[in-house]
Amino acid sequence: MTERVQEILSWYRSEPPGVLSNLYRILNHGRLAGTGRVVILPVDQGFEHGPGRSFEPNPPAYHPHYHFQLAIDAGLNAYAAPLGFIEAGAAEFAGQIPLILKANSHDILMDEANPMTAQTATVADALRLGCAAIGFTIYPGTAYRREQYEQLRELVREARAAGLVVVVWSYPRGSDLTEEGETALDVVAYAAQIAAQLGAHMIKVKLPSSRLELEAARKVYEEYDVPRDTIADRVRHVVQSAFDGRRIVIFSGGAKKDDPNAIFDAVRGIRDGGGFGSIIGRNTFQRKRKEAMEMLDRVIQIYQG
Amino acid sequence: MTERVQEILSWYRSEPPGVLSNLYRILNHGRLAGTGRVVILPVDQGFEHGPGRSFEPNPPAYHPHYHFQLAIDAGLNAYAAPLGFIEAGAAEFAGQIPLILKANSHDILMDEANPMTAQTATVADALRLGCAAIGFTIYPGTAYRREQYEQLRELVREARAAGLVVVVWSYPRGSDLTEEGETALDVVAYAAQIAAQLGAHMIKVKLPSSRLELEAARKVYEEYDVPRDTIADRVRHVVQSAFDGRRIVIFSGGAKKDDPNAIFDAVRGIRDGGGFGSIIGRNTFQRKRKEAMEMLDRVIQIYQG
Amino acid sequence: MTERVQEILSWYRSEPPGVLSNLYRILNHGRLAGTGRVVILPVDQGFEHGPGRSFEPNPPAYHPHYHFQLAIDAGLNAYAAPLGFIEAGAAEFAGQIPLILKANSHDILMDEANPMTAQTATVADALRLGCAAIGFTIYPGTAYRREQYEQLRELVREARAAGLVVVVWSYPRGSDLTEEGETALDVVAYAAQIAAQLGAHMIKVKLPSSRLELEAARKVYEEYDVPRDTIADRVRHVVQSAFDGRRIVIFSGGAKKDDPNAIFDAVRGIRDGGGFGSIIGRNTFQRKRKEAMEMLDRVIQIYQG
Amino acid sequence: MTERVQEILSWYRSEPPGVLSNLYRILNHGRLAGTGRVVILPVDQGFEHGPGRSFEPNPPAYHPHYHFQLAIDAGLNAYAAPLGFIEAGAAEFAGQIPLILKANSHDILMDEANPMTAQTATVADALRLGCAAIGFTIYPGTAYRREQYEQLRELVREARAAGLVVVVWSYPRGSDLTEEGETALDVVAYAAQIAAQLGAHMIKVKLPSSRLELEAARKVYEEYDVPRDTIADRVRHVVQSAFDGRRIVIFSGGAKKDDPNAIFDAVRGIRDGGGFGSIIGRNTFQRKRKEAMEMLDRVIQIYQG
Amino acid sequence: MTERVQEILSWYRSEPPGVLSNLYRILNHGRLAGTGRVVILPVDQGFEHGPGRSFEPNPPAYHPHYHFQLAIDAGLNAYAAPLGFIEAGAAEFAGQIPLILKANSHDILMDEANPMTAQTATVADALRLGCAAIGFTIYPGTAYRREQYEQLRELVREARAAGLVVVVWSYPRGSDLTEEGETALDVVAYAAQIAAQLGAHMIKVKLPSSRLELEAARKVYEEYDVPRDTIADRVRHVVQSAFDGRRIVIFSGGAKKDDPNAIFDAVRGIRDGGGFGSIIGRNTFQRKRKEAMEMLDRVIQIYQG
Repeated sequence: MTERVQEILSWYRSEPPGVLSNLYRILNHGRLAGTGRVVILPVDQGFEHGPGRSFEPNPPAYHPHYHFQLAIDAGLNAYAAPLGFIEAGAAEFAGQIPLILKANSHDILMDEANPMTAQTATVADALRLGCAAIGFTIYPGTAYRREQYEQLRELVREARAAGLVVVVWSYPRGSDLTEEGETALDVVAYAAQIAAQLGAHMIKVKLPSSRLELEAARKVYEEYDVPRDTIADRVRHVVQSAFDGRRIVIFSGGAKKDDPNAIFDAVRGIRDGGGFGSIIGRNTFQRKRKEAMEMLDRVIQIYQG
Repeated sequence: MTERVQEILSWYRSEPPGVLSNLYRILNHGRLAGTGRVVILPVDQGFEHGPGRSFEPNPPAYHPHYHFQLAIDAGLNAYAAPLGFIEAGAAEFAGQIPLILKANSHDILMDEANPMTAQTATVADALRLGCAAIGFTIYPGTAYRREQYEQLRELVREARAAGLVVVVWSYPRGSDLTEEGETALDVVAYAAQIAAQLGAHMIKVKLPSSRLELEAARKVYEEYDVPRDTIADRVRHVVQSAFDGRRIVIFSGGAKKDDPNAIFDAVRGIRDGGGFGSIIGRNTFQRKRKEAMEMLDRVIQIYQG
Repeated sequence: MTERVQEILSWYRSEPPGVLSNLYRILNHGRLAGTGRVVILPVDQGFEHGPGRSFEPNPPAYHPHYHFQLAIDAGLNAYAAPLGFIEAGAAEFAGQIPLILKANSHDILMDEANPMTAQTATVADALRLGCAAIGFTIYPGTAYRREQYEQLRELVREARAAGLVVVVWSYPRGSDLTEEGETALDVVAYAAQIAAQLGAHMIKVKLPSSRLELEAARKVYEEYDVPRDTIADRVRHVVQSAFDGRRIVIFSGGAKKDDPNAIFDAVRGIRDGGGFGSIIGRNTFQRKRKEAMEMLDRVIQIYQG
Repeated sequence: MTERVQEILSWYRSEPPGVLSNLYRILNHGRLAGTGRVVILPVDQGFEHGPGRSFEPNPPAYHPHYHFQLAIDAGLNAYAAPLGFIEAGAAEFAGQIPLILKANSHDILMDEANPMTAQTATVADALRLGCAAIGFTIYPGTAYRREQYEQLRELVREARAAGLVVVVWSYPRGSDLTEEGETALDVVAYAAQIAAQLGAHMIKVKLPSSRLELEAARKVYEEYDVPRDTIADRVRHVVQSAFDGRRIVIFSGGAKKDDPNAIFDAVRGIRDGGGFGSIIGRNTFQRKRKEAMEMLDRVIQIYQG
Repeated sequence: MTERVQEILSWYRSEPPGVLSNLYRILNHGRLAGTGRVVILPVDQGFEHGPGRSFEPNPPAYHPHYHFQLAIDAGLNAYAAPLGFIEAGAAEFAGQIPLILKANSHDILMDEANPMTAQTATVADALRLGCAAIGFTIYPGTAYRREQYEQLRELVREARAAGLVVVVWSYPRGSDLTEEGETALDVVAYAAQIAAQLGAHMIKVKLPSSRLELEAARKVYEEYDVPRDTIADRVRHVVQSAFDGRRIVIFSGGAKKDDPNAIFDAVRGIRDGGGFGSIIGRNTFQRKRKEAMEMLDRVIQIYQG
């Protein structure tokens, strides 16, 4: 075990060895093994946005095996997907890459100001499918966040007993936030804090902008002059907001960007701000495989550098 | 076991032998046994539309035994019905045809923009009645879909433990969809994807039109020029949307059509587009028995051809 | 066992011997024993309409023992009442008449377009009180019918395990039905079908009028010219709608009628249309005992005739 | 055992000996022991109305022991209070007076047309605290009465198994009743009937006025000329409405009255109408102790007379 | 054990030894050990108000260990925080200070007239983390208070069985109260009474103003001339409202005050009015550590004086 991994595991002394073991598996898999940095492939857009819109840009991605293979070949730390996609390849790729089962999902066939997810998989599913972790999305700021926090509490309880890592996607939404506010610095930092307080082992947030959304927070940020000009500044604040860096916080890639340099700039900012890594979906599987592999190679090199 | 059945079963490696056995029973029953194609008789209109409207066109259909016998004599793969109809013949026809117990139902005595089904039967009912599968309807796009997805999650869990196949009727509805949108190509493909992600073993959708409903999807379909002119094109896209063809997708027949040729054309399109078969209710039991038998004979011949 | 009772029991082959035994007890009790016809005394108006309004016309009826004795002395098949009334006499009249425990109730202290019942008794109550059956009211057409159907599903499951008969009061209501529509022929037939599909052993509906309520049903009824001029015609259609006569359907008497001939005409229609009997409450216990006894004697003679 | 107590217990033959034993304890405690009459001290105003408003008129009443001692010294049958008040004295006064644990409570910090109680204590609490009975308030006529009736059903089930008596406070409320209607004769009689049908062993209602609230009831009351001019007339009708007098019905004292003669008149009416006793809270604990003791002495004498 | 602690424990005779033991631990820890007074450090603002707004004024407070160390070094009785913060230090500081796990939380990313908390931790969490107590916030006056009271009932039940102390934060809120009304004397006294009736062992309320909010209460307070001019007067009334002083009531410090003298005045008032202590969060951890330590030293001296 590298010292960095040892240090990271030391932050989770309240957790049983089973959780530490699976955290170790994720941190020690792929090309970033042992560095304390992680790159994860998430593919939940088939459910979240619909199959045609998600996979038509790169039709081999309709096939569930495509994503397992991409994550393995690119040397990533883990592959995350909802129940059906995991079930459709868990036996074929058994043991080849740590799997994160997304336990809740949401579709967009109805337009909702306060979206609420459905719990579509369980800890028992994760165990029977050989997963290392379970993923759960919360929408802080929505009318149903309370139900979500309580579902997460139960999920964490079951996952801990089963030795599984819990990865929380913490995405502020809801009728009281502006659309830009969902990625405002204070709001993303708040989302990271909430996930940490709820017992998340790994926390996924969106890359924040320099915007401040909440009036009461803005006053404090301005009074104390919190740096927020660069990506690295903002990442640093979010990481600090998750127990002063003692929880693994990773950042999502967002919608497909035509220019990969935007992605590389973001990754450099995450690295320099002390972020723990990236979770990149659409920017990989919506590109041709060769292009995606090259992009991931570059991302990993940045984290290694 | 034919090679085709073997191939189909290979897609379900995450499932226990009990589920595979019942899938095998359905795929190997009747005149299409071993072809990988299925024709199923569903009779839930007594509950969904009322008895007079459903059975008066062919009064012997009031009798629950009528449908068991029709499905057996026509050489179909399975017979699907709600609790009462299955209970009223399960002993008399025990073992003669695979049964699919519809586990939820909805009546139309109230007009609802966001319909929600009642769970009217359980896995335990399916077991005590000797069924091979359990059927469940979801309405993606409705306000209560979340409850339905979670009910389905539990049903799949119980069914898997009991070795039962799960057949999901995935019918988009709800206040944000136009009526035509319910059968739009992008929406039907989305419905198939959702059912597959939720762990369905067999998926029943409506035959899609060439319409595109969701703005964000339309852009992608048009940019990538997804073929959608013929029934076969559209069936192909829907089947691709269910894990690139690795889940059994069947298509429903819709309201009774006076001209059986419309049905035969649809069946040819399903066959040519790689669909796995048909589920035909009103077009059979609302016809006189002789006429229905001839029609089913023709449908089966098309699938055999 | 008479041939008729044997035939009736043969329709319930999916049910365990315990249920058949209690069905036998009801069918073989009182003056109509063995005929396949039943007359039942239900007294739930104290809860449903209030005590003064229900019992003041015949004050001895305030006493819970009054009704047990009336049902016994008149030679009826069973006595049905809510928890309190059964508890107040179950020990004193133990074994003297089959009891049907009404498991849900509704009061009218609030005016509701979509009434919902409370579950006020359980299968365990029915067992400890020595009942042969459990009764449950559903309101098809109301906003909460889904909860009711699911409550009934659980009740049927428990009752079956306990060997109890389930009697379903199926009364269409709700904001989308006109008041006349609640007794329209198509609606009452639909109510009978729903109860049968939900697994009811005995079904109680209101005597239908010749009205047709649902537009889509009306077209079919008129196209196929369903007879509906006489009470017997209408009863025949309702009985056919309950699995072609293979479920016991009985008809309620409605509000107290001053002229008993209206009741006798209804009973003749039920008999001639193939109905299985009557459930008569207010028309008996709101009359003086002597008058009620004479009326019930006449009703029984009609069914015997 | 007196004949009267024996007679009263004979009405509860469906109940197990444990319930009868606790009923016996209540009926045989204090100065009215064996008479079949009961006077109970209830102190739930701290929760229902707030502490200052309830206890400031007589500050020793802030102390939980005050009420235990008052009930014991006055020779009452039982003392009823919510969880905290019982917990704060159950050990100190163990065995000295039968205790009734109020299992649900409601505060008035929010103004609600359809109030709903919280279940604040359980049967397990009653057992660990040595209580003889559990008390539960229902609000017939409110939008949430259904939940309350079902909570009561479960409470009765648990209480019966534990041998505890169930005392139901039946107080009509809700948006469809006028304020005067809450104590109208027909409504109070209805409330008594509902509690009896739900399985209550003892029923507490408000003393009714001569008003008739429900249109359909009024017609019957007027047609049959139900006497309602005197308190005794009205009490008699309410007692009759609770299974013709075969359930213990007691009447509450209402808000504090300056002139105790109003209370004595009410008690005489309850006695003469066949009521089983009084439950007097604010009229005792909001008076100085000496004054309260004298008033209770007089009330008991009236019941003894 | 000091006589004062012995006296305090004597008020909890309904509780099992496990609860008494943990109450003893809290009362006998730190510099106020044995005095019957307590000072507690609560840090839930990260969840309740967001991390930047809470911790930027004193950045070391982002680190979860900071608060454990502050509470230990200042000689406080206990440290209270939500799940994540406790988990992040429970092993490192095991046994060094009694811990209170906050079991429910609320964020302010949505503005709600009737806020409702999420249950974010359980009694099982408290046990595995070695806590002495569990904390729970109720909002009397809000539309969802009923759910909260019932959640608290269950929490108290589980905590008692596990020997844990229950500390209730009782904060009136909701659409029927003015903002000033939330700290009105009658409302705070009511909040203390409700918490006591619900079985709380320790009760935390806000320091009340002299305002009277509820019309019916105001009349009584004015008629009986309840003293409310000084902090000590008002504390005395609140303590009296919690079972005449037989429950431990502590007072919160509120938002950060620039002038510490305001805090010292409040503490003197609490002491003189018979309050049991203070729970001070923002006024400590939002100051530099040295300043906070000095302030806490002074607070403790006042309570010792």
